[in-house]
Order: sequence, then C-alpha cells, then structure tokens
Amino acid sequence: MNTIGKILTLTTFGESHGPAMGGVLDGIPAGVDIDLDALQRFVDQRRTGQAMGSSQRDERDRVEVLSGIWQGKTLGTPIGFIVRNTDARSEDYEEIARCYRPNHADYTWEAKYGIRDPRGGGRASARETVARVIAGGIALQALNHLGITIESSIVGPRLGVAEIQEAAKDGDTLGGIIECMVKGVPAGLGEPLFGKLHAQLAAAMMSIPSVHGFEYGDGFEMASKRGSEVMDLFVKRKDGTIGTATNHSGGIQGGISNGEDIVMRIAFKPVPTLMRDLPTVDRSGNPVTLHPRGRHDACVLPRALPIVEAMAALVILDNYLIKKTNVL
Amino acid sequence: MNTIGKILTLTTFGESHGPAMGGVLDGIPAGVDIDLDALQRFVDQRRTGQAMGSSQRDERDRVEVLSGIWQGKTLGTPIGFIVRNTDARSEDYEEIARCYRPNHADYTWEAKYGIRDPRGGGRASARETVARVIAGGIALQALNHLGITIESSIVGPRLGVAEIQEAAKDGDTLGGIIECMVKGVPAGLGEPLFGKLHAQLAAAMMSIPSVHGFEYGDGFEMASKRGSEVMDLFVKRKDGTIGTATNHSGGIQGGISNGEDIVMRIAFKPVPTLMRDLPTVDRSGNPVTLHPRGRHDACVLPRALPIVEAMAALVILDNYLIKKTNVL
Amino acid sequence: MNTIGKILTLTTFGESHGPAMGGVLDGIPAGVDIDLDALQRFVDQRRTGQAMGSSQRDERDRVEVLSGIWQGKTLGTPIGFIVRNTDARSEDYEEIARCYRPNHADYTWEAKYGIRDPRGGGRASARETVARVIAGGIALQALNHLGITIESSIVGPRLGVAEIQEAAKDGDTLGGIIECMVKGVPAGLGEPLFGKLHAQLAAAMMSIPSVHGFEYGDGFEMASKRGSEVMDLFVKRKDGTIGTATNHSGGIQGGISNGEDIVMRIAFKPVPTLMRDLPTVDRSGNPVTLHPRGRHDACVLPRALPIVEAMAALVILDNYLIKKTNVL
Amino acid sequence: MNTIGKILTLTTFGESHGPAMGGVLDGIPAGVDIDLDALQRFVDQRRTGQAMGSSQRDERDRVEVLSGIWQGKTLGTPIGFIVRNTDARSEDYEEIARCYRPNHADYTWEAKYGIRDPRGGGRASARETVARVIAGGIALQALNHLGITIESSIVGPRLGVAEIQEAAKDGDTLGGIIECMVKGVPAGLGEPLFGKLHAQLAAAMMSIPSVHGFEYGDGFEMASKRGSEVMDLFVKRKDGTIGTATNHSGGIQGGISNGEDIVMRIAFKPVPTLMRDLPTVDRSGNPVTLHPRGRHDACVLPRALPIVEAMAALVILDNYLIKKTNVL
Repeated sequence: MNTIGKILTLTTFGESHGPAMGGVLDGIPAGVDIDLDALQRFVDQRRTGQAMGSSQRDERDRVEVLSGIWQGKTLGTPIGFIVRNTDARSEDYEEIARCYRPNHADYTWEAKYGIRDPRGGGRASARETVARVIAGGIALQALNHLGITIESSIVGPRLGVAEIQEAAKDGDTLGGIIECMVKGVPAGLGEPLFGKLHAQLAAAMMSIPSVHGFEYGDGFEMASKRGSEVMDLFVKRKDGTIGTATNHSGGIQGGISNGEDIVMRIAFKPVPTLMRDLPTVDRSGNPVTLHPRGRHDACVLPRALPIVEAMAALVILDNYLIKKTNVL
Repeated sequence: MNTIGKILTLTTFGESHGPAMGGVLDGIPAGVDIDLDALQRFVDQRRTGQAMGSSQRDERDRVEVLSGIWQGKTLGTPIGFIVRNTDARSEDYEEIARCYRPNHADYTWEAKYGIRDPRGGGRASARETVARVIAGGIALQALNHLGITIESSIVGPRLGVAEIQEAAKDGDTLGGIIECMVKGVPAGLGEPLFGKLHAQLAAAMMSIPSVHGFEYGDGFEMASKRGSEVMDLFVKRKDGTIGTATNHSGGIQGGISNGEDIVMRIAFKPVPTLMRDLPTVDRSGNPVTLHPRGRHDACVLPRALPIVEAMAALVILDNYLIKKTNVL
Repeated sequence: MNTIGKILTLTTFGESHGPAMGGVLDGIPAGVDIDLDALQRFVDQRRTGQAMGSSQRDERDRVEVLSGIWQGKTLGTPIGFIVRNTDARSEDYEEIARCYRPNHADYTWEAKYGIRDPRGGGRASARETVARVIAGGIALQALNHLGITIESSIVGPRLGVAEIQEAAKDGDTLGGIIECMVKGVPAGLGEPLFGKLHAQLAAAMMSIPSVHGFEYGDGFEMASKRGSEVMDLFVKRKDGTIGTATNHSGGIQGGISNGEDIVMRIAFKPVPTLMRDLPTVDRSGNPVTLHPRGRHDACVLPRALPIVEAMAALVILDNYLIKKTNVL
Repeated sequence: MNTIGKILTLTTFGESHGPAMGGVLDGIPAGVDIDLDALQRFVDQRRTGQAMGSSQRDERDRVEVLSGIWQGKTLGTPIGFIVRNTDARSEDYEEIARCYRPNHADYTWEAKYGIRDPRGGGRASARETVARVIAGGIALQALNHLGITIESSIVGPRLGVAEIQEAAKDGDTLGGIIECMVKGVPAGLGEPLFGKLHAQLAAAMMSIPSVHGFEYGDGFEMASKRGSEVMDLFVKRKDGTIGTATNHSGGIQGGISNGEDIVMRIAFKPVPTLMRDLPTVDRSGNPVTLHPRGRHDACVLPRALPIVEAMAALVILDNYLIKKTNVL
C-alpha cells in the first residue's frame, strides 16, 4: 500500500516527527552510474522555493544511501535510503491530537486506523514526499543516461511571488497548476489496458498531497472540441521516422507513448493550513477553535516541482523496463 | 498488465473480432447474492445510448458466467465470464492493417509489440470495456447490499441529441464530461500514500478509452481558489456523527473517504473515427488517404456511463475489503 | 489469489461441474509461434495415464483459445482460454454436501468461505489443473523456441502398473514422487532474495493438488552430508564457458540458475478418495459413513507429469522475462 | 523482487558490508502492542547458537525502528527499520572479487547482474536474514496477541554439539533439518489455488539461504504410503468443534488450515564456506586456489531457528488478514 510500480518499485516509510523518512527503490537495473552529489542537489530543490512563499525552515534533507549503490554504480539490489527528521518539537501537537483540522487527513486517518500520530501530521505530512524525490532522482539519472529528460513549471493560474506574499499576509494560501513534460521517450511505452501510460501517470501524480486534478495532452479542453479539431495527423519526418504534426494527444495514444513529448498538467488545491483561527470540532464533535502555529508554506507549488518530476521519472523508467519483456 | 485491483482483481482478455471478450473477477467475497438478470440489464446499458448518437449495431452482449456463482450466490472463487463476438467481418480490415489511423492506437501498438490485430481495432477497441461493465456490475451489486450506490451523468460541455446529430451529419465527433457520484461510502476507505482513493479512481477512469482528464471535488477550479474559499468545515450532525458543511474535497481527504459523497469528473476526447476521408501514412511513412467504413458513434458519452460506474464500483469495493485488514 | 507469476501471469477460474474451466495467460511476449494442435496434444497427456491406473472417464478437454493468438502468433495481449465441463451429473453430490470427506478440502473450504460448491469437489477438484496445463503448454512452446526443454518422470517410490492395480483392487490409493528436469536454462535466472528460483518453483509445485514435499538438487539428503561432500567445483569447459563438475546444487545457486540442468523432486500424497466405506462427520460433527461413488484414479502420478512440466514452464519463462529488466 | 507477502508485505535491503541492513514491514494492522525489548531479544537469537558451532563474531544487531510504531503501538503505517553493519573490513574481499567460490552465489550473481559487491558476499550474505527476523518478530508478537504461537527445533539428522565441533575441526561443515510448528491457527487460512498455505510457507522457507527442501505433514513419507494409511479421520471434540484424530496432513487440507497444528520440515545444506583450501576458477575460468579467511559457522542450524519462525509468522499473519476479506 506504500509501494508504487511494477518492475521498478518504490516503498516508503516515515512519520513527519519520527526518527526518519525513508524508502526502498527496488528493481533498478544493475550497472547504472549514479551521481550522489547531483542527487542531493535534486533533493534540495524541495527547499528552494523559499523566495516564492515556502516556509523558512532550514531542513536540509541529507540523503543517506544505505545499500544498492557501490563505487558509483547500481548493483541491481534494492537501494535503501533514509533522511533523518530533525524538526521534531513534540510539544506542538497536543491541540491537533484532540481535534480535526479542516481539509487535513486527521479525521479520515482516524476513521481508517482508529489511531493517528498527531506530531506534525504524522505520515500524512507532505514531508513523506522527500522519499519520492530521492527515489525519483535516481530514476531520473537512469533516464538521462537514455536521453530522456523531464521538465516542469508552474503554469498557473496564480504564480507570482507578489500574489503568494499577499495571500500569506492574509494568513491565506494558494493552489496552482504544474505542467510536466517528458522528452525523448521512445514510442511503445505503456500498457494498453488498465496500465495505460497516462493512467499510471495520473495515479502517480494524484498520489502527491494536495493534487485534485490531472490531464494530459489537451485534457479537459478536448471535451469541448470536435474530433476534426484535435486530430494529430501523421507525418514522415526528414529522418524517415513517423511522427505527428500536432500533439493534442500529449505524446500518448491508446495508452502507449508515440514518441512525441509527453505533456500533462496537475492541479493542486491551496494548502489547508491557514495562519488564522479556524472553527472545527474535537473528537466528540464539539466545536473548538484552532489556533495557527508553526511556519507553513502559503503555496506549495515551487516545492512541488521536483516531486512531480520524481513521480514522472519513476513511472517512465518502470515502463521502459516493462517494455523489454514484450518480446522473447 | 491486464489486471486491476489489489484484493478484488479484474483480469480481462479479448480482441474485438476474436472469438470472445471476457474476464476473471477474483477476490469477490463469498455468499453475496448476485442477480444475473439485473447484471445483463446493466451490461445492456452500454447499447442504450442509441437515441443520443450511438451506432446502430445490434450487438446484444449476452453474458455467460462460467464460474464463481452458484445458486445465485458467490462462492468466493473467481468469477470467469465471456461474451461472444458476433460482428466479425474480417474483410474490413485490410486498409487498416497497412496504415495508421490518426488518434488511434495503431502506430503505438506496433511500436510496442511489433505486431497488431487490425480487425476492428483488435484489443485496442473500446469493445474491451464490456468485460469491465460485467465485472463492475457484479461489484456494484455487492456495494448495493452495503447501502453504497453509484450515479453518473453527462455534465457537458455538449450533451444534446441535436448537437451530436449535427456533428454526425458533418462526419465529425464530440467529446464530453461525465460526473460520477458514489453515495453511502463509509469514512475510512483508501490508502493514504500511493493508493490514495482518488489516485486509484483516477487510474481506473484514465484507463477507459478516450479519457484525457480526471478531477475530484472542486478539481482544477481549486487551483485558482484561496485556501479559505475551499475549506470544508466540520460539523456535528443531528445523529451525533461528524460531517462537513461543504464538500469541496469531493468526499476524500488525505486520500481517504470522509463519509461525504465522492464526486469526480472525467473528460473524454472526441471519438477518433471520423466519417470523412482522412490523410495519414502507411507503415513506411508514405501518405495515404483513409476512407471511412463501418458505423461508429459520433459521441461515446451515453455508452460510457455504465463503464464509469463499473470502474468506480471495482475501486470502491476493493478498498472496502482492504479496510477490513487495517485492524487485527 | 488465483493468479501466479510476476511478468507472465496465469489467472484461472472454474468449478469442476460448472460450465467451464478456464484461464488468462497474460504477459506472454508478442510474435511467438504457437502450434495449437501440439498444445491440444500436450493437454491430452492429462488423460493418457490410463494404463497406469487413471480413471476411465473419456473427458477429452478441447481447448478453446479465445484471444491473444492470431494467425499462429501471439499478439502480446492476454490469452484467454476455456475448456467446457461435460461430466456434470449434479445428482451425485448430495451426500458430499452434507458431510466432510477426510483428507479433502470440504471442511477447510467451508471454514474459509462459509459456502462451498459440492458438485465434484467444486473448485477444489484437481480438474482445475487443466487450465495450468494449457497455459504451461503455451509457455513451454515459447521456451522450446529458446532451446529450453522440460522433462519429468515418476521416480518412486512405487511406480509399477501392477502395484497401482493391486491398490485399486483393495479400493486403496498410492502416492509417489516425480522428478522434473529443466535443460538449457541460461545462467542468471531467478531473484536472489524472496524470489529465489527454487522458492518460486517450490511454490508452483506445492500449489498442485496432493503435493506434500519439494526439494531441488540433492535436497533432503544434503542435510546429512558434510559441506565437502556436496561441493560443486567449477570447471572451465572446452568451449571456454564455466560450468560445474557435479550438480548437487540442482542447477541453482544463491537462488539463481547457474546453467546446469535444474533438477527437482515433488512428493505426492495418495489420492484421498478411497473406493471403500469411510467413517466421517456431517456438518454438525455427527458420525456418518461415506460410500464411494464415481470413478477415481488410484494414483494421480501419471496424469500429474504434464502438470508438473506446465508449472515449471510458467516459472522459468517468467524469470526469463524478468531477467531482461536487470540491465538498462 | 525483494518483497514478500500480499497484504502484510516485507521489503528488505542491504549488503553485508554496506552501511546497514534494513526493511519495511507494510500492512501491519493499527493499534497492535509491540514490545521493542522483546523484539530485540528475538533478534539476538540469531547470535545465540555459539555453543553449537556458530562463529564468534560479536555482532549484536541493534534494531532501530524508524517509523510505524508510536507509544508502543503500531500506527497502521509502514514500519521502517535498520541495523547498522559494523564488521566491514573491506580489505578482505579482493580474492573473492577475482574468483567464484563453489556453492556460493558469486558466479550466478554475476551472470544475472553483470556486477557484484564482493565484500562479505554483498547482498547474497546470510546477513540479509536479520531484516527477516526483525519483521517476523513483529508479526509474531501480533500473532501471539491472537493466541497463535510458533515453535521450531533442530530434528536432525546431525544435531549434537560434538558433531559440529568435529566437523569444524576438519574445516568442514554440516547441514540439518528444522521442524517448525504453528499452534492455535484457526481453520480457514490460506488461498486454495496458487496461494495454498503450504505453497506460501514453502516459498518463504525456500527463500532462506541454504534451504534445499520443504515438506509439511508426513511430507515425502506420504509418497510411499497408501491412502488408507494417512487418512486423518474427522472427530467431534468434547467442545463440539470438529477436529481430526491424526495429523498426517500437517494442519493444512486443500491448501487451507484445518485448525490442527501446522507442521513442516525444512532441509538445510551444509554451509558452503569451508576452512580448507579449495580449488576453483577465476572470472576467466582459469584454476585458482581459494584460501579460507574470516570466521564462519560450521553449522547454521542453531542460528536459523528464529529465521524459520520469522518467515512462518509473516506468512501466517498475512493469511490471517487476507481471510478477513473473504466475506462482505
């Protein structure tokens, strides 16, 4: 349940204020060069959105790789890794333990498990994404060796630093949309039925905290177009290969990559933690008032870019490996 | 790869013009009453959109249940089922075998497998969804016994019979958006990390042919709202239980159901088969002209309603069963 | 739960006296030549042990392939198949429905599911193995194309026709041991941790009805040997490759094939259906006497040979495919 | 590939001389009391066989639980854990890096991955079992809360301290057989087809390093018995429940537990590391002589007892959880 992937699998663990976050990346091919310094820099991007409204915690997440890489190369064995948690002030959580924060997972978590770790949101904290970025960063290096690259950017609807600062001043928060492109993917990746490439990408992206929508290619706009308006006609390229003149399909047709850029957009809701008093209920349903505490991002989008790229990398590399098994 | 689900799994098979479509629904609990006549009627809904633009083929899909149900009750064993294919005029496919239809899966399928069954689209045909509807119809009956119901409707952007007929007259096609609601789901279903309930629903819906987008709750609109505008405040209901005053979250918080109605929207692209001549390329990349043949829907949305409901039923029942394992 | 395999998966269904047995073989590579007549002959071997004590039912199991193979080649899509059940005399089962046959699955099945199909043993019947033989027969043809072959034989302890006939005359039954060899397997197949090649083979063989033991290489005998007595020393073969001078390890070291013949032995218990009156209990625990009915094998070993080979083929081909993903 | 289990899954990582061994136990129910001191003592049993021939390394494996347990209770979230490696003298491995040790995994590992960590056997070292014992120890505590207990003992064929010491004096090694009993298992656990309870146990036990055989109940002996000799007749017990008068079936019938003690035997080959010079080949196939180094057990059986119990606990608890999903 804490595992994603078919051949390349990532299993993660960790509560926000427990000893460590971590994961196991299994199924990574053997003999792949991994640059651990570059990996650390990729992980550090989860902190670099500060100028655009991220919180000021100095929480450099030092990656400890515990297995699977030796002398700079993957061994084919699982890559275990951890990041220690340092910001664990457990005195903060008593109010949260007694009541349910709106738009958080406090209530649903208790409905499911009957128990919950209230310290910093426990495992429901977005801090769990650090393990995704580490694993995805490794997958990304493997993809880069194959000539496949991933880019992401905030495409709206509100993305200015000023706007984020204004919301923060009001104790309020903002959502947004990230567009992610995967370039250099060969045609033929993806499973045509339940494992359509875009279905796997959707599941991966929708599993990122705060995501409420996913589309690829022309997405929701396609619903209001006629077929003749979104037809990606085939062309023979100068090098003799076959491509499409347009890319309404977003690089995927019938669930399988067609060699064009894979394009998708992911919608994030505004962060649920406001810097205002909020009315809510305690565990008995009685009204209480929540008081803001701690430091929180007014907008997670800048921090979310490497997370989106990491999830894309995990899915694409997994499907690259699965593709190898389609012929004897 | 042709399997979906964790405890409740559906595995499907079948090419459009092969002997039969079918599937295996495994993990269905034992002792559940199944009404096979009601199941057949649910499956028949895949044909009932005719007045709204579906094609005129008379292809009643008679469900043959081969195992797993005895004397009207599930045995706990896998339910194997098939539907025979009857509309298999194999003389039709020679043109399609030589070239790639735009916005179809012909090219990508060959890129993946090096071989493809061109007859009626082979396994890439939307006909494969009949197996989903059968299995989902069984899951739906089990959910109904638990007081959980599923409704879906076409919510836009173009949904009038007149509009579909107009597009059809032009040899063109239309897409659209389906909204699906699941009512009566208890709080606590869904896996909070990679298996977030909405991530599973997204993967299930995105695996339906022609789907290009998925959102739940306020979806993409949330990206342009402030946190304070989409906050679902908790309230104590008259019966003492806890609910939310609004449902921007679409019944899911932190990836787990919160007891409110689950609400999601699924965007379909227009059908790629136009009733017009179309320019494309053959397998060598040389230009050819495709001539329309056969009868095809100008809009699949009316037929897609039971498919959407079936996929929702499979995901919800699977998570209902997983929930049972959260306590000793 | 009714699925085996990782990349190459087999999912089966069917009750002994229901409409049909069947299965779905998914993950088979595309473009593999399959000879359906040869497949039928392989499946027929489940009936050919008659001279050695098998029952006299004339139950030719005609294989209907419903998908995944076209013009003699695999498409890369799932191969669905069924075999109709014909020997369904439902008047036979009333006694069995009321009581539990010793050493059968009647009691445990009810303990698990609360319901059971008593007709011919339902899904607990060894008839379910027909689906394994069909799928394994396809896998075997794929392996043969790669130069990998599988042989099995009855190696004891009682294997004479006379002995089986004598037991049958007493209304009694016999067990036995089958040895299975896989030849031509390249070095490097198998997953070194939980998926050790012999662990996968053990699980596959132990899942065959009536199997009570599994060993590979020198097996249980190794437990009473000194290390120096079972050491497979490496040698350089004339062709320059590396092999071992002996094969105590049975072709697998550290869970991975080493290029030598894979050798394993599987122990079957005697058939539990005696042709004698037997004391047992009904569902309330009260004593009743079971009267023999129908025709049953006095020894299943002759029929079990293709089943063992089929299971071996499924495991080896699955691991052959997994191996492809070990490098980028 | 480094994961075992269906609902309760264990994923492990770690090379013998890397920074740490570890694992993630996912799917453990929420709210279970775990005694971490008792867990450490269980893990310490991997070292206590010293009087019976284990090596003298003082390698107390201090368990660090990183997540999933809070205030003495499971949270329902994955339990991540590590054990640091301390005995990492990397100068030792140069000879091993150049040649293949007989009956080890050096050659096959290279055939599979093209690369291998030679330090202390890398991931092929039996040291990886420490992660199994930690996870299994947690599962065992959960089972104990349910009244299910597990016992194991060395049953032969050579088990005396004197005999082990004699072999050690010759620089030789010994194998042996461990019998494992699971008591208090309710009837109804196990999946009747591919996931037969004994098939799962076989796979789990065969995945332990050095294991070459598995049997349950009367095992291989059943192959030479008549059906009438191994019939476990049903009896009504004084408390009104149904049991069997004998237990030739080893507590499992038709792949499902019947409420009797589960009994199985596991055969271990002699340790492959002899304290003698051994002839072998280098990576080019040329003859070389291996010189013994380090300290090694002459017999692993005493250390293997908690490993066997741990694997049994993981399988039984997993099936206990799966059983919950068999009814609506």
